[in-house]
Amino acid sequence: MSVTTYTVTGMTCGHCVSSVKEEVGEVPGVTGVDVDLESGRVDVSGDALDDAAVRAAIEEAGYQVAG
Amino acid sequence: MSVTTYTVTGMTCGHCVSSVKEEVGEVPGVTGVDVDLESGRVDVSGDALDDAAVRAAIEEAGYQVAG
Repeated sequence: MSVTTYTVTGMTCGHCVSSVKEEVGEVPGVTGVDVDLESGRVDVSGDALDDAAVRAAIEEAGYQVAG
Repeated sequence: MSVTTYTVTGMTCGHCVSSVKEEVGEVPGVTGVDVDLESGRVDVSGDALDDAAVRAAIEEAGYQVAG
């Protein structure tokens, strides 16, 4: 299992956190999603994660991945 | 039908707007809820509205009514 960290901008409240968790949680291979609202830090755990799919899920939720 | 305007604080994004609309929309007699995120203005339309029930619904959604 590996953990990949993303910095996400645009999340303003707990609902935003839930949206990101939900969308990213649906990406194949993802076993866990931890989000820190204040810093925008999103830690995604899983096996053989598809980085592009995770980024697409974050954008699908309506937020931006920094970097 | 009457329209009562409330000023609500704490809404930060579209999810917050949806939460307020949903909770207030469930109050008996309410026929419409318009929310302006930026100003916090919430216009509640309906018949024989129970002001206390509307305020309780807003607080139930997780926000504060000013005044």
